[in-house]
Amino acid sequence: MGREMVNVGCVKEEIDTPALLVDLPAMEANLTRMASFFQDKKAKLRPHAKTHKCSIIAQKQLDLGAIGITCAKLGEAEVLVEAGISDILIANQIVGSPKIARLTDLAQEANLMVAVDNPENVRALSQAASGNGVVLRVLVEVDIGMGRCGVSPGQATRNLAEQASRSPGLSFAGLMGYEGHLVFVPSLEERTRRCQEAMALLLETRDLIERSGLPVSVVSGGGTGTYAITGALSGITEVQAGSYLFMDGRYRGIEGLDDFDIALTLLTTVISRPNEKRAIIDAGMKAVTHEFGLPTVKGRAGAKLIALAEEHGIIQFEEPDNQLKVGDKIELIPSHGCTTINLHDFYYATRHSLLEAIWPIAGRGAFH
Amino acid sequence: MGREMVNVGCVKEEIDTPALLVDLPAMEANLTRMASFFQDKKAKLRPHAKTHKCSIIAQKQLDLGAIGITCAKLGEAEVLVEAGISDILIANQIVGSPKIARLTDLAQEANLMVAVDNPENVRALSQAASGNGVVLRVLVEVDIGMGRCGVSPGQATRNLAEQASRSPGLSFAGLMGYEGHLVFVPSLEERTRRCQEAMALLLETRDLIERSGLPVSVVSGGGTGTYAITGALSGITEVQAGSYLFMDGRYRGIEGLDDFDIALTLLTTVISRPNEKRAIIDAGMKAVTHEFGLPTVKGRAGAKLIALAEEHGIIQFEEPDNQLKVGDKIELIPSHGCTTINLHDFYYATRHSLLEAIWPIAGRGAFH
Repeated sequence: MGREMVNVGCVKEEIDTPALLVDLPAMEANLTRMASFFQDKKAKLRPHAKTHKCSIIAQKQLDLGAIGITCAKLGEAEVLVEAGISDILIANQIVGSPKIARLTDLAQEANLMVAVDNPENVRALSQAASGNGVVLRVLVEVDIGMGRCGVSPGQATRNLAEQASRSPGLSFAGLMGYEGHLVFVPSLEERTRRCQEAMALLLETRDLIERSGLPVSVVSGGGTGTYAITGALSGITEVQAGSYLFMDGRYRGIEGLDDFDIALTLLTTVISRPNEKRAIIDAGMKAVTHEFGLPTVKGRAGAKLIALAEEHGIIQFEEPDNQLKVGDKIELIPSHGCTTINLHDFYYATRHSLLEAIWPIAGRGAFH
Repeated sequence: MGREMVNVGCVKEEIDTPALLVDLPAMEANLTRMASFFQDKKAKLRPHAKTHKCSIIAQKQLDLGAIGITCAKLGEAEVLVEAGISDILIANQIVGSPKIARLTDLAQEANLMVAVDNPENVRALSQAASGNGVVLRVLVEVDIGMGRCGVSPGQATRNLAEQASRSPGLSFAGLMGYEGHLVFVPSLEERTRRCQEAMALLLETRDLIERSGLPVSVVSGGGTGTYAITGALSGITEVQAGSYLFMDGRYRGIEGLDDFDIALTLLTTVISRPNEKRAIIDAGMKAVTHEFGLPTVKGRAGAKLIALAEEHGIIQFEEPDNQLKVGDKIELIPSHGCTTINLHDFYYATRHSLLEAIWPIAGRGAFH
């Protein structure tokens, strides 16, 4: 395909489109900024690979001090382990015998933690792990207000923690709670208050469990929108931020995140100029997502993406435009990196407008 | 990944999830129904592969009488040609020298048509084709009301047609117009009227061009929602319907399409039961799209998908449910097959609940 026709060292406009561009200086600054925050914190960073799905980037995060990597899916973890990454939290429930067999196989090669929220699942994991001669570390997921997976805080969590701690093949490592419903609260003051309240549920549950004599060594939570709040709380040991390295368009206007730069764009080509107020580009919903709002046009005042079809984007100009020609390139800023990246097989990593590297997105589609 | 752990012949519940299931009897009935419609029509079917992105299915369509295949992107066409399919319309503008070079290379191996709507692009195609010793057949795309790509009907189209007909390396084959803004008009009467009006623009333009002595051998248009209207019009030679083989959830309630069955579902697993009114499944926005509305739950009265996260779906029950357990399977009906399929690498083709075949979606992500 197109990627074979481009060489490292070319200018970015020569990359065939649609192509996902990484602005390396911006990404490196984001990675360093986040790593610096955690340097003097008790909590450590375990970046979420669901965003980048790329072992090359995960290794950069580890090199900068991250204590391990977080994944959303077993398939993503398999990709990372294959690339030599060995300390992974799968922040999700692994259900069903085919997946549990893969999980215990993977645990032979890597130091895994996995989330649990259900007694039968704990039994199934225990049986498979002990049968396979491995010890799986488990975190009990606590629902701290998002209303997705997780056990209720308090006694219900303690019960599952105790079950896990008694289960052969399992080691109860701690708790996980994700304040995903709060990461986009625009006001820093409100976000801080609500995030602290949510995390208090997790930390009180930890205290309850520890009072019964069971040590809770890991307390994991946090996302890009809350890393500085959750990551500063006493008792939190790990933070799972993911989006910070590219910084989605959606985070614009979310107070407290201005120091991160947008490092991900989609390079597109104008394929039609039906009239002076419109340009059609060669990227649509199959190359960029829009559940967090339409992508925006980078660096062209008055140009607005107004619609995405499957393979087309429609750009409208405030004033008639006679400059932009068929064949010219347009960069879009995705509103949601995680899902947009999942549509692509390669990153085109650029520095000062030159293509420096092409990185495979090996975890693309690894939702199994 | 999971797909390696399942064998053809197993029951579908053994397939690891999320997995895209094809209901073969339903798909075959849809394919046959559409093929039958065109049997006594002057217009012929050139099914759109942007939906299925799979050469195995494309071959079935050809075996049933389709005159060729339509693609949205050059990358899709490359995948089909590699699989031996030789008559392809790329219903889109191919812009920029790397893509045009690939296009003229591909034209050495297959009988291609490509859409044009711009004089500079016609010149670039002409230069590359004649330089490469091939003759590219071009269709001038006419904007018949959708407001995307395409030249205005009438004189502007004639001018571009004449330019193409004079261009070395190009052969002016005809016109293309897509009434994509009309395929979801619910009322059959209104859809028929508006579709006929849109297609009249295309056919009048054909007449204008033919009056100047230039033959217009191809007039291509139509989608699943309008195939029976456009496909019955005198002068239309090809219809580009794509979704009919799986029939998206979005087409429900669109009058006149009830004879097609839903043949595509997403098999998911319940990974959490936080309470009696909720179940969490292992598929989210990275496994099923929702731009046409959230997917619906198949065959479980009172169960409704109320939200998708990246890797989770949240199902709510009207009445408290104590039956569904962690590990149980749920099937979703996607609202939009084309974009959902683009998230997957394999179809799991089932017949009467048994897995009959696993088909690669080789055109997945081929947006280049």
